[in-house]
Amino acid sequence: MYFSLFHYSNIPRGLLMIPIISIVGKSDSGKTTLIEKLIPELTQRGYRIATVKHDTHGFEVDREGKDSWRHKQAGAHTVVISSPKKVALIQDVEKDLTLEEVRERLIQDVDLILSEGYKKDIQPKIEIFRKEKHKELLCTREDNLIAIVSDRTFDIGVPCFDLEDMIGLASFVEKEFLENKGKEDISLKVDGKIVPLKPFVKDFIKKTIRGMLTSLRGCEKARRIEIHIEGEDQ
Amino acid sequence: MYFSLFHYSNIPRGLLMIPIISIVGKSDSGKTTLIEKLIPELTQRGYRIATVKHDTHGFEVDREGKDSWRHKQAGAHTVVISSPKKVALIQDVEKDLTLEEVRERLIQDVDLILSEGYKKDIQPKIEIFRKEKHKELLCTREDNLIAIVSDRTFDIGVPCFDLEDMIGLASFVEKEFLENKGKEDISLKVDGKIVPLKPFVKDFIKKTIRGMLTSLRGCEKARRIEIHIEGEDQ
Repeated sequence: MYFSLFHYSNIPRGLLMIPIISIVGKSDSGKTTLIEKLIPELTQRGYRIATVKHDTHGFEVDREGKDSWRHKQAGAHTVVISSPKKVALIQDVEKDLTLEEVRERLIQDVDLILSEGYKKDIQPKIEIFRKEKHKELLCTREDNLIAIVSDRTFDIGVPCFDLEDMIGLASFVEKEFLENKGKEDISLKVDGKIVPLKPFVKDFIKKTIRGMLTSLRGCEKARRIEIHIEGEDQ
Repeated sequence: MYFSLFHYSNIPRGLLMIPIISIVGKSDSGKTTLIEKLIPELTQRGYRIATVKHDTHGFEVDREGKDSWRHKQAGAHTVVISSPKKVALIQDVEKDLTLEEVRERLIQDVDLILSEGYKKDIQPKIEIFRKEKHKELLCTREDNLIAIVSDRTFDIGVPCFDLEDMIGLASFVEKEFLENKGKEDISLKVDGKIVPLKPFVKDFIKKTIRGMLTSLRGCEKARRIEIHIEGEDQ
């Protein structure tokens, strides 16, 4: 009976699943510059942006001899440096994280995640293409290509934006990924994996939990509810 | 009726509230060195440690000109650099975070958080004291002092450990903060604040949610359940 409630390919998006877009392109196509120009266009519209950059060679963000560096050297799994204006975190990982894992583990309080690269990841992609440098596109629609930014046009069924048209590109991103902002939503993760829920099930779980919590002091007007349960059922 | 279910001063600790201990001491007392020696003693016992260091002067973890640095300069709120062995995150904050806020926003998958400094924070503290450098203790039991590490002894009702006795200190930390590991627990956060739950209420919520989820595919043997609900009740 239960399988009729589910539709696995349709993972819900909402406030709780921060949308991810990958900016892809061949080397030297201008990915970083495109991100640099797109961010202010989006922040100006009131959105908070996170970026993710892949670094295959490893990297050094902390400085030798600093206290936080000494903590890490001593074997700390995670090191946080906190200051009044920003925080930094350095953490061991057991493998290269997918963008979804980066989102789940590290990112909150932003409206959109832009990654630079990650062309093999499953997330939607915007490709930057320059006709004097490249012969053909890196991605196809099968790679989840959703738009192209280029100095030529392509007729492959996705919108094309001029290299300078950040207003057009930002509006496209806004319309496709950001306008759901503020809608009520629920997400369920079991053992680290998101469980897709049909609207009926969402509504059932949401109303049951909200109903159960109304008699608890401090929960009468709850907007955001987060419940974590851990361990074997008893 | 509902208030009989609650006891606000007793916030539950479990897998979901990673314990925090602050290593405090006057300047030059050897806080970083103590942390450096305590971490391997704890990791050797199978615990994962995170450290938090406060930096009042701000800090520079990223390098000018790097792609991630350019993303941040362009206005990204959060920047992540991901590599196969570690990830780094740099994030704007609106104010100095408390240790509890650092835990809530940034830290997961560790067993214990050790902070260096944070003597004004409410978390339990271990003070390091050297008789040739200091005249009196920085903290009292009112500051939530739980132990002293020193080359002299104090008779103020908290355990004292020798400067070299990392085995004793690690055993104390383990006994007081880490032995609950693995127990089932539930945490409820409403609008960002943890709602303390009495055992009866915990059990009621846990069983209701587990019961509700058993008919969902993929949820039959759930160990960890995370539910987030966002938005106004409809």
